[in-house]
Amino acid sequence: MKLEQIKNPQFLKQLNIEELEELADQIRSFIIHHVSETGGHFSSNLGVVELTIALHYIFDSPLDKIIFDVGHQSYVHKILTGRAAQFSTLRQYNGLSGFQKKKESIHDVWEAGHSSTALSAAIGMAIARDLNHEQGEMICVVGDAALMSGESFEALNYIGSVDSKVIIILNDNNMSISRNVGGLSNFFSDIRMSTQYKNARNNYISFLSKSNLGKKVYKITKKVKDQIKNNVINDNIFGEFGLDYIGPINGHDFHDLFSALSLASEMDHSVVVHVHTVKGKGYPLAENDYYGVYHGVAPFDYREGIRSKESSMISWSEVVARHIEKWMYKDQDIVTITPAMISGSCLRHIFDTFPDRAFDVGIAEEHAMTFAAGLSNAQKKPFITIYSSFLQRAYDQINHDIARMQLPCLIGVDRSGLVGADGETHHGVFDMSILSSIPNLVIMTPKDAIEMKMMINTVFRHFQHPYILRFPKGNIEDKDVSLDKEISMGSWEKIIFDSQNALTIMTYDVKVDRVAHWLMTEQLPVNLINARFIKPMDENILDELSQTHQHILVYETDLMIGSLGASIAHYYSRKKMPMTIDYIGIDDHYTPQGDLDTLFKIEHIHLDDLKQKVKEILDEEGKS
Amino acid sequence: MKLEQIKNPQFLKQLNIEELEELADQIRSFIIHHVSETGGHFSSNLGVVELTIALHYIFDSPLDKIIFDVGHQSYVHKILTGRAAQFSTLRQYNGLSGFQKKKESIHDVWEAGHSSTALSAAIGMAIARDLNHEQGEMICVVGDAALMSGESFEALNYIGSVDSKVIIILNDNNMSISRNVGGLSNFFSDIRMSTQYKNARNNYISFLSKSNLGKKVYKITKKVKDQIKNNVINDNIFGEFGLDYIGPINGHDFHDLFSALSLASEMDHSVVVHVHTVKGKGYPLAENDYYGVYHGVAPFDYREGIRSKESSMISWSEVVARHIEKWMYKDQDIVTITPAMISGSCLRHIFDTFPDRAFDVGIAEEHAMTFAAGLSNAQKKPFITIYSSFLQRAYDQINHDIARMQLPCLIGVDRSGLVGADGETHHGVFDMSILSSIPNLVIMTPKDAIEMKMMINTVFRHFQHPYILRFPKGNIEDKDVSLDKEISMGSWEKIIFDSQNALTIMTYDVKVDRVAHWLMTEQLPVNLINARFIKPMDENILDELSQTHQHILVYETDLMIGSLGASIAHYYSRKKMPMTIDYIGIDDHYTPQGDLDTLFKIEHIHLDDLKQKVKEILDEEGKS
Repeated sequence: MKLEQIKNPQFLKQLNIEELEELADQIRSFIIHHVSETGGHFSSNLGVVELTIALHYIFDSPLDKIIFDVGHQSYVHKILTGRAAQFSTLRQYNGLSGFQKKKESIHDVWEAGHSSTALSAAIGMAIARDLNHEQGEMICVVGDAALMSGESFEALNYIGSVDSKVIIILNDNNMSISRNVGGLSNFFSDIRMSTQYKNARNNYISFLSKSNLGKKVYKITKKVKDQIKNNVINDNIFGEFGLDYIGPINGHDFHDLFSALSLASEMDHSVVVHVHTVKGKGYPLAENDYYGVYHGVAPFDYREGIRSKESSMISWSEVVARHIEKWMYKDQDIVTITPAMISGSCLRHIFDTFPDRAFDVGIAEEHAMTFAAGLSNAQKKPFITIYSSFLQRAYDQINHDIARMQLPCLIGVDRSGLVGADGETHHGVFDMSILSSIPNLVIMTPKDAIEMKMMINTVFRHFQHPYILRFPKGNIEDKDVSLDKEISMGSWEKIIFDSQNALTIMTYDVKVDRVAHWLMTEQLPVNLINARFIKPMDENILDELSQTHQHILVYETDLMIGSLGASIAHYYSRKKMPMTIDYIGIDDHYTPQGDLDTLFKIEHIHLDDLKQKVKEILDEEGKS
Repeated sequence: MKLEQIKNPQFLKQLNIEELEELADQIRSFIIHHVSETGGHFSSNLGVVELTIALHYIFDSPLDKIIFDVGHQSYVHKILTGRAAQFSTLRQYNGLSGFQKKKESIHDVWEAGHSSTALSAAIGMAIARDLNHEQGEMICVVGDAALMSGESFEALNYIGSVDSKVIIILNDNNMSISRNVGGLSNFFSDIRMSTQYKNARNNYISFLSKSNLGKKVYKITKKVKDQIKNNVINDNIFGEFGLDYIGPINGHDFHDLFSALSLASEMDHSVVVHVHTVKGKGYPLAENDYYGVYHGVAPFDYREGIRSKESSMISWSEVVARHIEKWMYKDQDIVTITPAMISGSCLRHIFDTFPDRAFDVGIAEEHAMTFAAGLSNAQKKPFITIYSSFLQRAYDQINHDIARMQLPCLIGVDRSGLVGADGETHHGVFDMSILSSIPNLVIMTPKDAIEMKMMINTVFRHFQHPYILRFPKGNIEDKDVSLDKEISMGSWEKIIFDSQNALTIMTYDVKVDRVAHWLMTEQLPVNLINARFIKPMDENILDELSQTHQHILVYETDLMIGSLGASIAHYYSRKKMPMTIDYIGIDDHYTPQGDLDTLFKIEHIHLDDLKQKVKEILDEEGKS
């Protein structure tokens, strides 16, 4: 059958194992072809092909509700619920989301993008179901790394203490995003190793779920249940959380999956089904990908695999990491911390070079920040790099632990601003709004590699505050800067400045060069300020502008509330300096997915919007 | 000896068990007398008297570093490190902090106030120690409830995977703040029950730590270590995290404590010492306090115990809870969620009346919010009540899960604004700054019980958004309001308004009545607006004021950055309405502990500051 013709998962129930295996092959091939063409989450979806088929075979969505934690591994689910034809629009504006999305399908009952929310949501929905005396299983599929994140633990602990039932599928691929971190991952490895245990388990599950006698035995006798708990369903961490446990299961074997899922559905108590899958299954380069290069991919030729780039442009993350590495050579107190983003944050070389001073703490943003605070408290110099959107998880730790105690450290806020295809859960547009009101922080937004390096130099040469260094997704041209070149903290830069000019544009980050290029090309009588410190602001320049009564245009591509423009408005108002200010920025709503050019247009923050605005202001000023 | 004469803990090493027991009695009596007089954290400190003495007996602070998680249970530590004489200033302005404080003593190496940061900090400091080839144990004392919070789990998992050693004292009193929640708490109970296990453990520990032979055996043979792990140090959750385990120990028995702590100090790997203590030990009313009434206390007569108040004034929390309860009778879809604050948030009656619809999730703010999102997603109507300062832990869940999916719920933000004696970690002054930039939220700040109830009515009668209801610590006068009285969302209220008046004060919450009372008494020609919605703002009133060109004074007792004043400045600037605005609010720094009157004075947000400012403005306006 053509995958595009699937309407809903009902057809699965008619297929036999061979046909299901054929379907799995077909889906795998579909994903390899489509995702290598559009970009998207690759390895994780290849890993859950059989698991997702089995879930839809055993359960009845949407009566039974399946939540994929994070949701980036829901492509197979999307195919099985009638969305294969839309895969050419994956992650594009108005196209198919890369995550579960309620508006897309009745089979998507929850949305995420950040990890480790599924268990909390599922138990909430399960309790609601039971209060309403409704039917249907709540099933959530959670990766091993996401399960080791704080919120998942909180939820596990809670689920074990209440009566409402949730089926937790632990999708253990030993590799979520980067390789797993933490004591528990050893536990998972141990369990995977134990073949003796595995065989005993298999036989028992077979007996229970395959034969009618087994099912009866299971259902009728409480004693057998205790047997399961005591023997097959081993006493492990889940038992200590008060949860039943089935596993480990081979996640690519339909027989195993059907047995385990059937048994889980028969149980009347929350249960963890531990499924072992191979991330990237069916695409050897992805199967053997230690660092997570195939986790989220840009378009690539699937016949060749992902090649390292040969252009002179490299990513901001890479340029930041390289400069940090130089500093780590120079100053042995500098340490680097990442929450599970070695590949995304380009830290592989740092981890190889300084294994004792580089720490991957797993998907544990809260711990990452307080851990950094602890290191700083003991006179180390931590560099923590974290995606803007994930930093939201660690707001309290940045405030309560780092800033309140004035513990010096450098927090690299990667993927700040709109990120494009990952959509509303991933846009890094909130960080300035939430960080600006935290005392003691210095917030820096460099325009290019040189400025960024000078900022890092200044940080490590003085190291008196918690410093925030924002940088976007995307590439820049790298330039060499020696480690002793500094920048004056809190100083803005006059890129173009003539006190006769009636209009001054204030902007920051990569927008500075773009605006400068345009102004110079057009020879417009407009000033340009590089507002490279969001906090503290350059009050000298602000005051100077107020004296010449210039019209100001603040050009931002982040949320308008709480960003630079709002701070400037507040500053002038407090100082009773009446100024005429226009603002470009993102309004008070969530920005959807799409390519950046489209998103900039729909948010009216495109360079074209700036040009238009400048011309309007100049016309107006000319008239007055 | 007099406790006030203690300089440092060295004197302990000369005492024998009887003398230590005498000292414990003396300290307990000191705490009962002093804390009942000043107010402060009561039960938790009574519970750790022997434990803290034992820690300072076995270890050498400050070479060995002792971190108390949260820090509210560090009073005994303060006494033993030379601070007994300062207890009359406890939690007062410039007085002794209720938490560990670095500037107070070299024996305080970390600061907190929020729970569950100690483990992350400790492993950071332990790694720094090892990188520097320094000596000294890192010891942290963590309550059982705090250990079940997400960040603690993240840290436990991490500690188990690295070589640096931390000694984790699990202070298990089965009751941190409220009674414990979660599957794991059953595990703790089970372990406490198992006397067989306990005896085996005791004998073994005695052998290992008391006899020289035992110590040698322990040190020399790796085999014995495995023995410990396999037999005495049972395979439990800590083992699965990769940690060693000693326990459970009677936390009020010096022999047991010394044996266990000595053993822990001999080990070369991170270890959990499970200590069973009785919260409130030595003060029967506190020992039998199920709901945590004696956790944090206001001054009371220790001979009589805490009496319920008989005044007509009751707390905001109580008035909110009572009105929610009325709504729960009326609408069975309403559910109530608390993160471990049944007593603080006055929810006891709700939990008794609606046991199936009231959920205490433990110290798990992240889970609390996403759990609420799950319930809302399944058409329930969640009311979550949380202290402003602890809400910081759940920023991402409010943004990513609740607001992004536009899931209706009511979040009661208790203890908003300055809270007084708990100090900088607890002031609820950041919530508006971080919530204002989240789309879809409605933020409400009622001036009194009537307005608050009308807001709650409106929320539950329409229930279209996530709603934030801010209310402060302290008492109000309760007034009856029927459930059908509504308020217009986003509407401000003109308390005093004459378009001839040259000045308009904008304020909100309890400040409204205070300012109104003063203005009416003095008959000043000043308008007063009750800006009861921080988001959305009442643009009609804002526009009307701009037409009459009134001077505006925004009076806030929260952080100035990102609060109402900042939003008003930004609004007028965006609309190009030139306005003269003065601002009163807290500047860009952390506010220390102290009584509210003092704090309002030092922050220049006192009613007297407002009066002064108003008179200055009126003088000026009169001149112009």
